[in-house]
Amino acid sequence: MSERETSVDPLQRLAALLARLPGIGEKSALRLALALVRADAEYIRALADAVGSVHETLSLCRRCCDLTPDEVCARCLDARRDHTTICVVAQPQDRIAIERAGVYRGLYHVLHGVLDPLAGVGPAELRVDALLQRLRSGGEGGEVGEIIVATSPNVEGDATALYLSRLISPLGVRVTRIASGVAVGGELEYADITTLHRALEDRRAL
Amino acid sequence: MSERETSVDPLQRLAALLARLPGIGEKSALRLALALVRADAEYIRALADAVGSVHETLSLCRRCCDLTPDEVCARCLDARRDHTTICVVAQPQDRIAIERAGVYRGLYHVLHGVLDPLAGVGPAELRVDALLQRLRSGGEGGEVGEIIVATSPNVEGDATALYLSRLISPLGVRVTRIASGVAVGGELEYADITTLHRALEDRRAL
Repeated sequence: MSERETSVDPLQRLAALLARLPGIGEKSALRLALALVRADAEYIRALADAVGSVHETLSLCRRCCDLTPDEVCARCLDARRDHTTICVVAQPQDRIAIERAGVYRGLYHVLHGVLDPLAGVGPAELRVDALLQRLRSGGEGGEVGEIIVATSPNVEGDATALYLSRLISPLGVRVTRIASGVAVGGELEYADITTLHRALEDRRAL
Repeated sequence: MSERETSVDPLQRLAALLARLPGIGEKSALRLALALVRADAEYIRALADAVGSVHETLSLCRRCCDLTPDEVCARCLDARRDHTTICVVAQPQDRIAIERAGVYRGLYHVLHGVLDPLAGVGPAELRVDALLQRLRSGGEGGEVGEIIVATSPNVEGDATALYLSRLISPLGVRVTRIASGVAVGGELEYADITTLHRALEDRRAL
């Protein structure tokens, strides 16, 4: 009885679908489903519209491979940005995080992943060819002088940075890596061993 | 520029809507929005259907006030359940949690909240009248002999239990409260002071 009931209960069906999203456990999914039951009709309509619209209208920018509703994204088309520098990130949310920091005014390139041989992700699975194409064609309205690799400072992110560096340096383009170390505002005593190791290794003269 | 861009970006619009759901912060909302962009069309359609269907088809059971697609829920209609016992819970998710434990075979009553004077929640905001109606009418196919109050063991949950006890005991119905104390499988040394206090106070003879 309770098995059959579970399978037809629309609340449990919604919760099961929500639980397939990343970072949503079974209990969170149920809480979200109940919140959606209680939400007003206007919110539900706006949410359904927004889900449909990202799914239908967003595609990859023809140049930087970021998600955009247009063929070429607003950043790639912005003449006031520095078109000689490209910041390479793993995912669209990394681009958003850097853009929010408000200190970078160059272009981006989104790889949509990092090298991860164990998970079967090689260079062909990433948007590496599109990046090389940008460097070779010089179609950015200016010669690209620097590639900043801003993948996360972990094994996969570091391997991806090294791979790109070996691939791109021969083209005469400077390849740099974002700094990593103890987080600004963080407490030294709570930093993990690998971070401390990196912070010491990458120490700078004052 | 970036302000205007944010307001029209469908991804950020979806993330802003998702961030209004309980327990979803700004970063989780963005991660969820990106997952929805990448999800296949079939999943998106199933999710949209499920959201629409809970919102349109679920209403409160005429007897126990639980959410149900029918006028009276499957549990209230189940003749094999014990109709002489009603377990009172605060929210539908509490009913689901108890049902999953698989040890209770009586009926339920969902209050849709607990007494919380500071938040302006008094007895009128809860489904208390409907519970009294059930006890008085005897329309459960049997006289109700026991009300188990299964609200959470915190100030509001305890106050609600006490309130119900004073209201219902005069009707000649036994009112009980779920046990609380150190969680089964939990470590005594990590239990908080209030829990230990309760565990000692409610000690039982062996």
